[in-house]
Amino acid sequence: MAMGTTARRLESYVEGAWRRGDGEGQPVLNAATGTVHALIGTEGLDFKAALAWGRAKGGPALRAMTIHERALMLKAVGLKLMELKEEFYLENFATGATRRDGWIDIEGGIGTMLTFASKARRELPNTRVLTEGPVEVLSRDGSFVAQHILSPFVGVAVHINAYNFPVWGMLEKIAPSLIAGMPCIVKPASQTAYLTELVVRRMLETGLLPEGALQIVTGSAGDLLDHVDEQDVVTFTGSASTGQKLKSSPAILKHSVRFTMEADSLNASILGADAGPGTDEFDLFVREVANEMTVKAGQKCTAIRRIIVPKTHEQAAVEAIAARLSKTKIGLPDDEAVRMGAIVSLNDRDGVKAKVAELATEAEIVSGSLDTVDLVSGEADHGAFMAPLLLHCAKPLTAEVVHSVEAFGPVATVMSYEDNQEAVELARKGRGSLASSLFSNDEALVHDVVTGLAPFHGRVLIGNRGSAKSSTGHGSPLAPLVHGGPGRAGGGEEMGGMRGVKHFMQRSAVQGTPEMLSAVTGQWVDGASVRSDVHPFRKSLAELQIGDQIATKAREVTLEDVEHFAEFTGDTFYAHMDSEAAKANPFFEDRVAHGYLIASFAAGLFVDPEPGPVLANYGVDNLRFLTPVYFGDSLKVRLTCKEINPRENADHGEVRWDCQVTNQKDEVVAQYDVLTMVAKTWPQAA
Amino acid sequence: MAMGTTARRLESYVEGAWRRGDGEGQPVLNAATGTVHALIGTEGLDFKAALAWGRAKGGPALRAMTIHERALMLKAVGLKLMELKEEFYLENFATGATRRDGWIDIEGGIGTMLTFASKARRELPNTRVLTEGPVEVLSRDGSFVAQHILSPFVGVAVHINAYNFPVWGMLEKIAPSLIAGMPCIVKPASQTAYLTELVVRRMLETGLLPEGALQIVTGSAGDLLDHVDEQDVVTFTGSASTGQKLKSSPAILKHSVRFTMEADSLNASILGADAGPGTDEFDLFVREVANEMTVKAGQKCTAIRRIIVPKTHEQAAVEAIAARLSKTKIGLPDDEAVRMGAIVSLNDRDGVKAKVAELATEAEIVSGSLDTVDLVSGEADHGAFMAPLLLHCAKPLTAEVVHSVEAFGPVATVMSYEDNQEAVELARKGRGSLASSLFSNDEALVHDVVTGLAPFHGRVLIGNRGSAKSSTGHGSPLAPLVHGGPGRAGGGEEMGGMRGVKHFMQRSAVQGTPEMLSAVTGQWVDGASVRSDVHPFRKSLAELQIGDQIATKAREVTLEDVEHFAEFTGDTFYAHMDSEAAKANPFFEDRVAHGYLIASFAAGLFVDPEPGPVLANYGVDNLRFLTPVYFGDSLKVRLTCKEINPRENADHGEVRWDCQVTNQKDEVVAQYDVLTMVAKTWPQAA
Repeated sequence: MAMGTTARRLESYVEGAWRRGDGEGQPVLNAATGTVHALIGTEGLDFKAALAWGRAKGGPALRAMTIHERALMLKAVGLKLMELKEEFYLENFATGATRRDGWIDIEGGIGTMLTFASKARRELPNTRVLTEGPVEVLSRDGSFVAQHILSPFVGVAVHINAYNFPVWGMLEKIAPSLIAGMPCIVKPASQTAYLTELVVRRMLETGLLPEGALQIVTGSAGDLLDHVDEQDVVTFTGSASTGQKLKSSPAILKHSVRFTMEADSLNASILGADAGPGTDEFDLFVREVANEMTVKAGQKCTAIRRIIVPKTHEQAAVEAIAARLSKTKIGLPDDEAVRMGAIVSLNDRDGVKAKVAELATEAEIVSGSLDTVDLVSGEADHGAFMAPLLLHCAKPLTAEVVHSVEAFGPVATVMSYEDNQEAVELARKGRGSLASSLFSNDEALVHDVVTGLAPFHGRVLIGNRGSAKSSTGHGSPLAPLVHGGPGRAGGGEEMGGMRGVKHFMQRSAVQGTPEMLSAVTGQWVDGASVRSDVHPFRKSLAELQIGDQIATKAREVTLEDVEHFAEFTGDTFYAHMDSEAAKANPFFEDRVAHGYLIASFAAGLFVDPEPGPVLANYGVDNLRFLTPVYFGDSLKVRLTCKEINPRENADHGEVRWDCQVTNQKDEVVAQYDVLTMVAKTWPQAA
Repeated sequence: MAMGTTARRLESYVEGAWRRGDGEGQPVLNAATGTVHALIGTEGLDFKAALAWGRAKGGPALRAMTIHERALMLKAVGLKLMELKEEFYLENFATGATRRDGWIDIEGGIGTMLTFASKARRELPNTRVLTEGPVEVLSRDGSFVAQHILSPFVGVAVHINAYNFPVWGMLEKIAPSLIAGMPCIVKPASQTAYLTELVVRRMLETGLLPEGALQIVTGSAGDLLDHVDEQDVVTFTGSASTGQKLKSSPAILKHSVRFTMEADSLNASILGADAGPGTDEFDLFVREVANEMTVKAGQKCTAIRRIIVPKTHEQAAVEAIAARLSKTKIGLPDDEAVRMGAIVSLNDRDGVKAKVAELATEAEIVSGSLDTVDLVSGEADHGAFMAPLLLHCAKPLTAEVVHSVEAFGPVATVMSYEDNQEAVELARKGRGSLASSLFSNDEALVHDVVTGLAPFHGRVLIGNRGSAKSSTGHGSPLAPLVHGGPGRAGGGEEMGGMRGVKHFMQRSAVQGTPEMLSAVTGQWVDGASVRSDVHPFRKSLAELQIGDQIATKAREVTLEDVEHFAEFTGDTFYAHMDSEAAKANPFFEDRVAHGYLIASFAAGLFVDPEPGPVLANYGVDNLRFLTPVYFGDSLKVRLTCKEINPRENADHGEVRWDCQVTNQKDEVVAQYDVLTMVAKTWPQAA
């Protein structure tokens, strides 16, 4: 072990300052050269105080911001990180990862954070508390109603990460936490903590994050988890054995701390029976398998570990994959000729090899060697290099080890099946995985196999010629999609778009009168009080309040109206035009007015036409025609301001109006939400 | 202990037969009389085989049914149980519960199941696999997309229930499980297992449930939980200590078994500062507190344990609650004069009294006696009767026991606060509860306190004069609302409407081409193949397929059209009529066509007018106007069959159409779903 000249003592950012642990710290070696790259240690740091700091400083500051403000903050931080990426790429080499590997981690991570920032502003309202689902009417008279709300927990999100994605692993977790309004403590794995620490340093230097929103522990987390409570959330990515230990630790059990685990996974990729040699799908499959085995030297929790192929194509698949693997250029990660770098440490490489020895009790190595590795650069004595290893298991239905032991490196096992059901059975023997894939161009086969895989997998990718160029591949978790899987994969769920944000919030059902529910949610609920002074279309966002209402006069719908509308629009559907046919229809007693006529007349009744703060009707939601309108019926409209959603970076915001059309018997004819853009001020400031 | 003449040997229904355990069984005593009511025991039963039976028989049978078929099955079972309710009420008396108490359990439980059956048919499609959320477009060219699907786990849902609601506790859990498609094993608490066993017996006698869909274990569950795996789900209702033990049991940890806990909870009810004596809210609060303390003799997991009142109203509140409690008529549950029956057993009563002794270290008893109880019927020596006990804690901010020790009987503690923030702080000292309530008629106060309570509670009820008659009260979990709470309450979530169904399903992100995604979900995805033979409005459900499409000719929108539409409908909004004002609008370059005109013209383009299988347009979803339409623009429509949802009990079903309106530049002008009712056959069968 040589002391590198650049060895840096890592620090933890806790309680508002960068602090180094007592002593010199433990060495962390460069994966590819074996030199000491950093020194790490947290002895003497007070983790209970760090949690308290996050709760006292970070939480209140984040919760004072709206969701869109938090999202914009992350966007600004993400753009800044992107500017600084070359510094991260440089540090990335020490992890054994090539630049291409680092791209997944660094730009993939920053991109994930930016996606969250963007989706939050597009898909969530600009509030502090979310509502979920419709208002549930709990009493016949409508005086007792309920709705679910989601509030950020008032604790700290502790994120314990694996070594393989020091940047992405942090950012994909803190993005949803911070958008939800929860401060974070990040605990990266020691092997690659230097890169996470560097990124956090740069994030904090932006000054964009409120104090306490983000802390980092580099080195042992000590007694941190002994101090978590019912308002904290813990996420863990790593080995199942560590995860299970943490999940059942006393404080987590006692306080039912929300705990998400993302662990080992024997991910399978299946070649469809239709996808034999010569098909696009065969080539895609071979490329994908070889790629998944060698990217990050196979150190990905989503990497393909089990290669499930039809008996008839088994030999061809083995040969094609082996041929591809044999071309893999292995060596120093900063060598541009190199395709595959090193395992994260010599120690971890020993671990991988030990697992291969276990696999070898049920499978034989058919490509690559456990003992030798050809390098284009670097030294096998100092760097944790190893050759990609393809194994073959002849009796996968009765095997156990190949379905349960994960060699976390460039290692995978081929096994074959007789029919689709057996392919699914083999995949299921992994007992729960993060991701699986199927390469096939046969729709019926895809239906059967994918529905068979689904209960055991958090993500299933279908590969075929149609997405050959656009597919992001088997191994890529994506911000809009859930990442996690049942069983062996830990049973957790991360990301998944805004689902991931809700993971850091408590769902509560709030019950009461419409008035009181409105007071809590800030959204107008039918039955709550209304104001009908000036026409609400005359009010800018500065003046408009929920409950502002226009109740219109009535308008009769005549036979002439319907015939005229039919002729004008061309919509001469029989229910509007043909009395006999309408009467034969199970829903109508006679000819009825067009639904679109009702909505059009309603707009005619409720709009205030003069130029004003209402800028545009950009849509309609949940329109339901509830009672047929017959000739001679008289319609009136009640339009009520329901939700106001100002945009942070614009002169306007979205206003959602509850629109109810009733007839002369006060039956509800149509019910829907009208969506408008409304100016923040009127007349608009110059 | 006297042997009751009616003592019945309880049996377990496992592996397709009613089986009694070895030996005589352990006696279960009548709570109110002390006679032996039943004999219970599971020795010798094979629980591993019961799980295997559920997986092999019940799961496949349920998964072969659609969601609506499962819901209709539950409806039929529920209606049958309702017919048999008097038999259950009779058995209910042995639990110590009055008829009024039993109503919550029996009719409340059956009603919950019926609500699930009804909501499932209203809110979920008639499929076997659910989709969730929109299709996510993952590549710029649209060739790579994704959607989340939810599939039932292929294991068994094991429901371990508490003694207090032997009927409701079972039904509220099996209803969502069975609708999801998961078979159940129910394990009721021994004290009242006879009632659960009776109900299960009657359910199975209906012959409506497929074999293996429902099994019951009366008595010890033995090694049942040692055999669960990653496809099983376990729910637990009971004490936190037992729950934590089960949650960290080896098989559950090893396989990351989804585990829901609903445990102890020191539920608080807060009297608002505005709600002093003389207000409706004060009276409602006093009534609610006394009610929650005495219904089921306080043996409800949602019962009020902490009574949080403003300092100024403290004495009045204590006096009023005590006065009400002192009138409680206690005695034999089948005595119609009796308001409060017995604790479930003498043993459990001893437990409650021991907890009161703990509470008494921080609070004094201000109403009722720990040692004596006045009975209107029954014998205090044989029945587990006790007086309602009101305690008062003088220093709640520094107290620990009153916030953490739950006496599971007619016991609650009054404590006072200075301001709203302190009220919230006290409630939060329960460290997570199932339910809380606030009695106030002050909207600002309600907003502040409820948002403060929310992160610590699964449900918050606001009580005021407006819902005095309609409110279901603090203690009632309702099928549409989540039941569960963070921290001490176990961190679980049950019911919550269709959220509860998803708890028994695995969420998977499926990625691929639109064509392949459609093949998996059975829903048309934009980009998947289409068929344009005959007009799809000519096809009944028997003929219609997803992807059936009509692509219309174009229609120009003229100045005259817009002026005519404005005049006809009355919608003379400036953006349509006033060129100068439209140009000043940030979204438009000039006067634009009405959105409703676009939708009306679109219908005119796509409808096929002759009488046919399309019966009605009952609504529109997610309508967005994406590009302004200027005079001279030419619109065409593409209407594609997207989802087909046949009704089980009708001659028609719902069809959702993807409707896309484009202009002459192929820009999307409007995008929405058109919802129609379509006949199953055409011409319709007689």
